Amino acid sequence: MTSEPERRRGRRPGGADTRAALLAAARAIFTESGYDGATVRAIARRAGVDPAMVNHWFGGKEALFAEAVLDVPFNPRALIGEILKGDRDRLGERIIRTFLTSWDSQGGGVFTALIRSVASHDGVANALRQFFVHQVFGQITTTLADDGTAMLRANLVASQMIGLGMVRYVAHFEPIDKAEVETVVSAVGPTIQRYLTGPID
Amino acid sequence: MTSEPERRRGRRPGGADTRAALLAAARAIFTESGYDGATVRAIARRAGVDPAMVNHWFGGKEALFAEAVLDVPFNPRALIGEILKGDRDRLGERIIRTFLTSWDSQGGGVFTALIRSVASHDGVANALRQFFVHQVFGQITTTLADDGTAMLRANLVASQMIGLGMVRYVAHFEPIDKAEVETVVSAVGPTIQRYLTGPID
Repeated sequence: MTSEPERRRGRRPGGADTRAALLAAARAIFTESGYDGATVRAIARRAGVDPAMVNHWFGGKEALFAEAVLDVPFNPRALIGEILKGDRDRLGERIIRTFLTSWDSQGGGVFTALIRSVASHDGVANALRQFFVHQVFGQITTTLADDGTAMLRANLVASQMIGLGMVRYVAHFEPIDKAEVETVVSAVGPTIQRYLTGPID
Repeated sequence: MTSEPERRRGRRPGGADTRAALLAAARAIFTESGYDGATVRAIARRAGVDPAMVNHWFGGKEALFAEAVLDVPFNPRALIGEILKGDRDRLGERIIRTFLTSWDSQGGGVFTALIRSVASHDGVANALRQFFVHQVFGQITTTLADDGTAMLRANLVASQMIGLGMVRYVAHFEPIDKAEVETVVSAVGPTIQRYLTGPID
């Protein structure tokens, strides 16, 4: 509950602060209440901003959910820049390390919420596709491939990353559920690398 | 509905027929009613067998669910024999082709039911792990590797196969949702092959 004195301090300023506050609030409330139980109003209240900011910054509850739950700790443009920097032969390793470190830090609980919602809400599936394929991996593959394979490559990368999240956080397969990040990076890095830059036909 | 005359023909004989009838009935009823709505009694009635046969053949509702939904059209032992036959360098291709052809034939609806249930029922996650890791891929990797990596390899194969099902059937990523089976076999086969027989560290 937000107390009255806190509320009187007024709305947060706009821009990146509002966006970050909404993401943090959304993550907390989606984890507490699930996708259906969480309201845009409750998330905005927790973040101390106007509910209209959800539409302004994310386009709606579903997109906010996908991004909050995927928990990329910077915006997609910065993420892509970061991943594309450095040796192109080690892109696969960097992608796994970045995502796994981020997901591990939340204990995987929100990944489970994401998977459950994807299976029951078409809108969440759309948001997931939008995020994974168009905003993140598609941006990377479009930079790398100009032979018409970019979207298929982005799908393939997403399939391995989502499947990895499934067995590590949702279905708790042993031993991968407790494997060190670098063990997974070594095992799965070459897969992601081939999907990005190698032969796929 | 089963008509009276049909019922009077009596219970099905035991053995493989009973098992197959239960799988077909389970697939239909889980798809109609979801995991929670389906009862062992209703499945047994549809199959025309005694409800005790569910425990006898599958050990319970969760294991029946996992197997019905994974829809391997033969028993795991036969499946493994089939996959291990032939060129060991093309194991990866054969695994993808076998699973994708089977999943495609059901339109992916039951895969979605599986994913939704895995995210909300620990028992289903256990059944999925038991099936994928111990009964199928673990049997294959144990045959191939004796260096202590068999279970990790089985986890990795499962992660890619489950992720592939997620993007193809549940989240409908384009273009992989409508890609030809052989396109996916070419793209993902080498991944499965490396997880089975290649370097993973």
